Amino acid sequence: MTPTPINLSEKLSQFSDQWSPKIIAEMDGFHFKLAKLEGDFVWHSHSDTDEAFFVLEGQLRIDLRDGAVTLSKGEMLIVPKGVEHKPFAEAACHVMVLVREGTVNTGDAAENELTADPAARI
Amino acid sequence: MTPTPINLSEKLSQFSDQWSPKIIAEMDGFHFKLAKLEGDFVWHSHSDTDEAFFVLEGQLRIDLRDGAVTLSKGEMLIVPKGVEHKPFAEAACHVMVLVREGTVNTGDAAENELTADPAARI
Repeated sequence: MTPTPINLSEKLSQFSDQWSPKIIAEMDGFHFKLAKLEGDFVWHSHSDTDEAFFVLEGQLRIDLRDGAVTLSKGEMLIVPKGVEHKPFAEAACHVMVLVREGTVNTGDAAENELTADPAARI
Repeated sequence: MTPTPINLSEKLSQFSDQWSPKIIAEMDGFHFKLAKLEGDFVWHSHSDTDEAFFVLEGQLRIDLRDGAVTLSKGEMLIVPKGVEHKPFAEAACHVMVLVREGTVNTGDAAENELTADPAARI
């Protein structure tokens, strides 16, 4: 079976809910996900997966306990496993993330209104 | 230590050699690499890693034994492990790939003039 090309803009047009990552592709036990972010998230970490963030549109600040990193379109960051972080977007921002399959967006934080279904797919 | 943001354009400006992927980031045993491609590559497969291709500039055709897939800027493709493929770019093309650490670009093909150092980093 021929693998299927994935168009990021077309996938982004398929949803509008924020802080709700959607699986668009998988490889070797990892999921590529797209998300739309705006406002403040919760502090959390992932004990069993590094997490890659790519900014596709807008600007994303990732607060860390020892500083903050601001990413613009075309920039990426790897947050190592176990490192506490809190994403924040002053205005609407589109990102692609890469995490191990089954990773919950709010990590080790108590389940809250921002906790999303880790299996959501578009 | 605060993780370092990676600017893809800035990294792309640091090299000009073609078919020679450069590591820009790593996570959980995988490497993100940037490459500049033009012309024809060799048929090969990777027995132990899926491979993700993202087109950052230009257009990339990936020939597969049962067809071909053409990717434009903003499109991605996962080539599963063991699947023979041959990248081709009619004009200069910039891509990001994700593969398991240590993956050689020419995979199971005999080492040839296109075989690159899998540890090259920028």
